[in-house]
Amino acid sequence: MSDPRLAPVLDRIDAELPAALDRLMEFLRIPSISTDPAYRSECDRAADWLVADLVSIGVDAAKRPTPGHAMVVGHTADAGPHVLFYGHYDVQPVDPLGEWKTPPFEPVLQETEEHGQVIRGRGSSDDKGQLMTFVEACRAWKAVHGSLPAKISFFFEGEEESGSPSLIPFMKENAAELTAELALICDTSMVAPGVPSIASQLRGMLKDEFTITGPRIDLHSGHYGGPALNPLKEIARVVASFHDETGRVAVEGFYEGVEEISDEMKRQWEASGFDEKTYLESVGMSRAHGEEGYSTLEQQWARPTLEVNGLWGGYMGAGSKTVIPSKAHCKITCRLVGSMDPDRLREKIRAHVSDRLSPDATVTWDGNLDGSPAAVMNTDRPEFEAARSALSDEWDREAVLVGMGGSIPIAGFFKEVLGMDAMLIGFANDDDAIHSPNEKYNVESFHKGIRSWARVLAALSAERS
Amino acid sequence: MSDPRLAPVLDRIDAELPAALDRLMEFLRIPSISTDPAYRSECDRAADWLVADLVSIGVDAAKRPTPGHAMVVGHTADAGPHVLFYGHYDVQPVDPLGEWKTPPFEPVLQETEEHGQVIRGRGSSDDKGQLMTFVEACRAWKAVHGSLPAKISFFFEGEEESGSPSLIPFMKENAAELTAELALICDTSMVAPGVPSIASQLRGMLKDEFTITGPRIDLHSGHYGGPALNPLKEIARVVASFHDETGRVAVEGFYEGVEEISDEMKRQWEASGFDEKTYLESVGMSRAHGEEGYSTLEQQWARPTLEVNGLWGGYMGAGSKTVIPSKAHCKITCRLVGSMDPDRLREKIRAHVSDRLSPDATVTWDGNLDGSPAAVMNTDRPEFEAARSALSDEWDREAVLVGMGGSIPIAGFFKEVLGMDAMLIGFANDDDAIHSPNEKYNVESFHKGIRSWARVLAALSAERS
Repeated sequence: MSDPRLAPVLDRIDAELPAALDRLMEFLRIPSISTDPAYRSECDRAADWLVADLVSIGVDAAKRPTPGHAMVVGHTADAGPHVLFYGHYDVQPVDPLGEWKTPPFEPVLQETEEHGQVIRGRGSSDDKGQLMTFVEACRAWKAVHGSLPAKISFFFEGEEESGSPSLIPFMKENAAELTAELALICDTSMVAPGVPSIASQLRGMLKDEFTITGPRIDLHSGHYGGPALNPLKEIARVVASFHDETGRVAVEGFYEGVEEISDEMKRQWEASGFDEKTYLESVGMSRAHGEEGYSTLEQQWARPTLEVNGLWGGYMGAGSKTVIPSKAHCKITCRLVGSMDPDRLREKIRAHVSDRLSPDATVTWDGNLDGSPAAVMNTDRPEFEAARSALSDEWDREAVLVGMGGSIPIAGFFKEVLGMDAMLIGFANDDDAIHSPNEKYNVESFHKGIRSWARVLAALSAERS
Repeated sequence: MSDPRLAPVLDRIDAELPAALDRLMEFLRIPSISTDPAYRSECDRAADWLVADLVSIGVDAAKRPTPGHAMVVGHTADAGPHVLFYGHYDVQPVDPLGEWKTPPFEPVLQETEEHGQVIRGRGSSDDKGQLMTFVEACRAWKAVHGSLPAKISFFFEGEEESGSPSLIPFMKENAAELTAELALICDTSMVAPGVPSIASQLRGMLKDEFTITGPRIDLHSGHYGGPALNPLKEIARVVASFHDETGRVAVEGFYEGVEEISDEMKRQWEASGFDEKTYLESVGMSRAHGEEGYSTLEQQWARPTLEVNGLWGGYMGAGSKTVIPSKAHCKITCRLVGSMDPDRLREKIRAHVSDRLSPDATVTWDGNLDGSPAAVMNTDRPEFEAARSALSDEWDREAVLVGMGGSIPIAGFFKEVLGMDAMLIGFANDDDAIHSPNEKYNVESFHKGIRSWARVLAALSAERS
């Protein structure tokens, strides 16, 4: 840390931590669930909150309407390299609500044995807490130096958890305004606790949903049990046919475009500090259950999946009901790698289902048609080395380039629509329970995350000068 | 119809039909869903309504408490054979509520092309409408003659749709009071529209429910997709394993105690007027989907089943959620025939599931342990021939002895606990949508059902004298 501008900024971040936590808590109390239309006005309120917060640190920011949830865009007029920071203010639904130990939108600070202090609540990690690490770094820098070390554009969306339908049209319409030298994204996790991580590749995503209809109406299992086509049995058979007994996806042509990773990459990943035992045991698993012949990390970062995210039909209430339902439903997502094409894959999956239906059964597809291919980052850019060095300084441990099992389609879109590379740095932990009940973000992630961004901004500005 | 007492009773029934429909409507407006604790007081209200109605026709009736929903028991002091009439005042849940075209508990009379006038609403057929056919026959007889042609006991329960937990204890405690020469039950359907039917055999029933747990908590399908054990895939595999590709249940030992029916019985059934084409096509099926090698009627009446009545887990709301849930759930029922033993079968099914689980997956069973074997009626008793003749007179078509796919465990319990035979006569139709949205009861079933019971009572009393 030779940059003399940095020390007072880091001191300010340390001193301001309680105030920064208060601000995050306020943001977390807004239930901005984007996928559920009932929360539309709350999403709007979250966007307003962000605009006000950016304006309070001197950013020229505004809420920008879309056909869906609003974007928040802001710019500074500072000198230095021009970077665009992306995050999302929307959050996942909270069900099953009964499994939350504290209300999801009443965030609290909790002392834990394993992680020290944590922030508990929906969005604390994904992505409000992560997003605010960058905003707080800018706030501290500005307070100390009166200006920022880079020209920064802020770009926050409110549809990341619901397929980002407005994202590409908005980027196309505002391409000049949104194009910077590099995009920074804080929506990923560290490969292991305390190991600063920059994403080198991300899996892509395909979502779909189908309904199998058997009888025209719900039937009585006494009058019709036997002769009736039961769509629950039908959908179970179809879902069971998605995988073979080795864990491999059995949809014909599924693995087209999948590339095996190099031995060199495997070695790097194995040396990354990834703690397989903790990763598995913390969620109650004694082994990895994916494709035989691939390591846990490969299954997570380098192999595609077909997962069932929801499956339902018939009577789900208390007690028993002797019904043979008319319909059964299934939601799926696939994670994609290499050059797998979401549109072609969707057709293959739909054909797989249709080909397996019994006579009298019909299938309808309700999924939106969005999909995103896998993304590989341009890690040869000098900013990656600058950031790696800055992160290593903060965490006192060598930062690593790692794969990521999740999908952050925005990285691919920045490249595709704006020709802009992206660098993904995140401070979440695998046990943050994002998308699950009792989501949390370690206060260490928040605090050192803010400090990390201050260091990265200094490094990017120094690398330029 | 040589019995001179009958003609004025039938005339009175015809004249009183509008008033009888009004009474039924009032009864149907009480949402007595027994399986859902939220409707407990409504079940109580239905019992009160029945007591008041019985008292209004001179029956010495009372509500009798149980640990669950109350029984309604009443007696008359008339001379003649002593019969006990059984029915149930509770109804099935109404979900999916969105598929009802009229509110389930706001019954209406509707003119239909296919069936003439129908009574639409939950319970109209199962079992409030059927139950009231007998009560109305008694009311008319009493009004005309001042007394009934038989000593009648009434026995109505409120837990038939939720496993009848209080039934056997109550019968044991009140055995002397509840034992008559013969039980009459109106909770079955006619083999074809307009064909009066007496049940000669009923399938038994076993209910169970299980939960498969994979990961300890819900997981993110990016961070864990691949290595994670997905309980939805697990439960789909287990459910798919319940049947082989010929429709036969693949649980080891499932068919122990099943007997093939005689060629003579098959011939009788084939001549019963059962309309296979209508039965299948009315619910959108072009063929029977049960065990290969058995006719539609055999699949429905003479073969056991393992049906899935509910299957659920993961995200079921609007939009998409990239979750791998911790738990998946399944409700099943089996229909039993011959001497299949519910308790032994339950163990076989549970072992089948346990044996198929992946490492790290666990199963818990939540079903109540009730079960009822199949029941074969004592059709050699003279009352069966008397009733057959009476029904043939009313419907102008030979009454038939038929199998039944449904389970009316009460018939077996009467025999087992009280040593009392039962005769099941019902006027429902297969398209009544009992247990489904838009349940209905044909006004013809109601009207001719009342007339049928008047004739049966006359015949039973004449057969004795």
